[in-house]
Amino acid sequence: MSKVQPRTLSGFLELLPEEQVLFDRILGSLRDTYELYGFTPLDTPLIEASEVLLAKGGGETEKQIYRFSKGDADLSLRFDLTVPLAKYVALHAGQLTFPFRRYQIGKVYRGERSQRGRFREFYQADIDVIGDGKLDISNEAEIPSIIYRAFTDLGLKRFQIRVNNRKLLNGFYALLGQSEKAQDIMRAVDKLDKIGPEKVQEILSHDLNVPSADAFKILEFTRASGSSQTVLAYLEQYRGRNETFNQGLEELSAVTRYLSAFGVPDTHFAVDLSIARGLDYYTGTVYETTLLDHPEIGSICSGGRYDNLAEYYTDKQLPGVGISIGLTRLFYVLQEQGYLNEDLTTAPADVLILPMTDDLGPAITLATYLRSWRLQAQIYTEPKKFKQKMAYANKLGFQYVAILGEDEIRQGKISLKDMDSGEQLLLTKEEVRGEITTHTCLKDGTKPIVDKGE
Amino acid sequence: MSKVQPRTLSGFLELLPEEQVLFDRILGSLRDTYELYGFTPLDTPLIEASEVLLAKGGGETEKQIYRFSKGDADLSLRFDLTVPLAKYVALHAGQLTFPFRRYQIGKVYRGERSQRGRFREFYQADIDVIGDGKLDISNEAEIPSIIYRAFTDLGLKRFQIRVNNRKLLNGFYALLGQSEKAQDIMRAVDKLDKIGPEKVQEILSHDLNVPSADAFKILEFTRASGSSQTVLAYLEQYRGRNETFNQGLEELSAVTRYLSAFGVPDTHFAVDLSIARGLDYYTGTVYETTLLDHPEIGSICSGGRYDNLAEYYTDKQLPGVGISIGLTRLFYVLQEQGYLNEDLTTAPADVLILPMTDDLGPAITLATYLRSWRLQAQIYTEPKKFKQKMAYANKLGFQYVAILGEDEIRQGKISLKDMDSGEQLLLTKEEVRGEITTHTCLKDGTKPIVDKGE
Repeated sequence: MSKVQPRTLSGFLELLPEEQVLFDRILGSLRDTYELYGFTPLDTPLIEASEVLLAKGGGETEKQIYRFSKGDADLSLRFDLTVPLAKYVALHAGQLTFPFRRYQIGKVYRGERSQRGRFREFYQADIDVIGDGKLDISNEAEIPSIIYRAFTDLGLKRFQIRVNNRKLLNGFYALLGQSEKAQDIMRAVDKLDKIGPEKVQEILSHDLNVPSADAFKILEFTRASGSSQTVLAYLEQYRGRNETFNQGLEELSAVTRYLSAFGVPDTHFAVDLSIARGLDYYTGTVYETTLLDHPEIGSICSGGRYDNLAEYYTDKQLPGVGISIGLTRLFYVLQEQGYLNEDLTTAPADVLILPMTDDLGPAITLATYLRSWRLQAQIYTEPKKFKQKMAYANKLGFQYVAILGEDEIRQGKISLKDMDSGEQLLLTKEEVRGEITTHTCLKDGTKPIVDKGE
Repeated sequence: MSKVQPRTLSGFLELLPEEQVLFDRILGSLRDTYELYGFTPLDTPLIEASEVLLAKGGGETEKQIYRFSKGDADLSLRFDLTVPLAKYVALHAGQLTFPFRRYQIGKVYRGERSQRGRFREFYQADIDVIGDGKLDISNEAEIPSIIYRAFTDLGLKRFQIRVNNRKLLNGFYALLGQSEKAQDIMRAVDKLDKIGPEKVQEILSHDLNVPSADAFKILEFTRASGSSQTVLAYLEQYRGRNETFNQGLEELSAVTRYLSAFGVPDTHFAVDLSIARGLDYYTGTVYETTLLDHPEIGSICSGGRYDNLAEYYTDKQLPGVGISIGLTRLFYVLQEQGYLNEDLTTAPADVLILPMTDDLGPAITLATYLRSWRLQAQIYTEPKKFKQKMAYANKLGFQYVAILGEDEIRQGKISLKDMDSGEQLLLTKEEVRGEITTHTCLKDGTKPIVDKGE
């Protein structure tokens, strides 16, 4: 038979089993964190009517979208989890209870130009809190605590959550008489990290026709640094001159005030006036999160406050705040930078049972016993030599191997080998269970990421 | 602004939050079972090159497929998890260790005619064991034990795993001199449950030109019933007359012999000679699973043994055995038939904290404390009346509400209300933690399905 060459599309991440175990551990840890904060899981279709998905229309996104026909239907694959959330809330508003707090972890699709570390299919892990008409500012302070907890529980240490407020920026640009250009200015300022201050100044002066003195002030404003208190004190000089600015200052103060009660240490938080976020969508607090030892990676968790989640679908005012983690890219980057915990067990089970007799009965009975105690057990079933069976156990990284030869069966015991220490003990099944249980309990605390940064 | 009507495509299941929690519990329980038996998780792209996905070609599937172009690429959405597995194993064979045991739970796409209970996007939950050249028969005996454990852990009681062996059928048809028609006969026999014996006989006699006497024998063969031992004894009459039949009988005997060691009770298992499975792909043991109180639903978990997983991609001989659960349809059916556990808590968190003062500080501090102990806590942040806050707690089904008014704050205590009993206690934060911890530990044992059948 002529064969088809098996291949996986470029831009689509397909992991080997050991990598997949690590990826799933990260995903599971994020899910646990989100649930710790009272978010409910959501799952929406990957395919939506194009009319619905592209209601907002225009922009870079539309070019990248996977869009196709099936019968009469014009369909598209989702490119983020925010638009499906907007649709979901608009559609089911009558059956939801507000504030509505949901998390969603799922794949999204963007037909980007294929390049190293860029993916066309990737996981996003989002949380959002949606209010009905109103939403208290404390929600904007809770978000950094969720980011902090999420990354800390994964094992990351050296990261910083940077916060700004778009009302401050809008107010400040209004003070300079540049209100109409506010969105364009923010999009330029958002590029600071990528292209540097000179090029941003050039965009402001040349492309946007902002007077040089104002462009200078805009850049100076982004540079205010120091502790949150220092930056808030710096901002005081503009208080009372613009309503929007004042409101932004109040909000930013409230967010920083609540932070320590939310358990976020000063070391992991900064007010950063250069954070703007490119999307027009955001109206208040905005977030970015950077790895201190790898700023070149850019933000690994971003988001912000918005006033109107679903304006394309409903007249209902639905303000909210949310963040998104680009999980596939994060995993790729952490792997590249050597952050993944190589000591984490990726074996398919807690123990591999090696039957050394033709009759697999005793091995099966042992497996059934261990599984009844919720211990993961795999039986090596193939009639191979002992050496090959041990090689299998080694390759897959099993911690324990339970050997059942004629001697063991006659004595009603099991030889349990610890593959790390090489130690082998002749034990009863209850002792085997005890030994493995102790080990799996210790194992549970192992984090998928090792952050060696000082 | 003119609005776009929000909608979800027909044939795509989109659940409300309470339903989603239940669905996720079922999915999580299946994952736990699969891992208990030593299967490693896998995740493959939803999109593949059409050439790769349709390597086998033809059939009903191709008509139903979501196929489209992006740039020069001819792409398709996966319609099952078996073809992507075949591609994965053929592509990565050099980096895998055999026997390779993987599970995959993910969405697949089939553009079926839209009707009640039929889905175009649905989850499959698959396991497969793939051998390199060979695979021991004991793997075929382990599969029913996984099915048994999976459904039992979900809470199902009244179900039966039915097993047959295609070698028996092939051998028996050969005895009748109907070898060339074996595949067609099996496809007809596979319809027994749906269309009844008269119509199957008609297909055999008229469409397939099987002589009446033989058609009668074929149907008679499917009716052999009783305990596994009785059916095996019935089959003995044909032993020694056909090599394939003998082999099938050996395999079926081995499978039933190992079953009790694997912990499958007789009540949940039957040898059923009418099970054929439509797919040509299967070569040995085949499985179906039916709800005893709802046979009309058909099989809720099916699969079988195959000799050549990836023949379209590689010369490597990759025999295997696997099963698949159509999770979306199963969930839909269980919901329709009232099997879902309505007592299962679907609240977003273990406790809802109600701050009764303007300063949310004490509520935030309490939430942070409880979360540090891995208890799920949500703060109700909106400045509403007490009654409205309690209505929120009620609607979302919170078990506990922690009230923090001026009195409580002054005393350094919390009023903890049990929403079930109505009891309200004034407690320290440590006592609150103890109370909720006790409850969540009990809760963990609750199963998502309640099977009231006797």
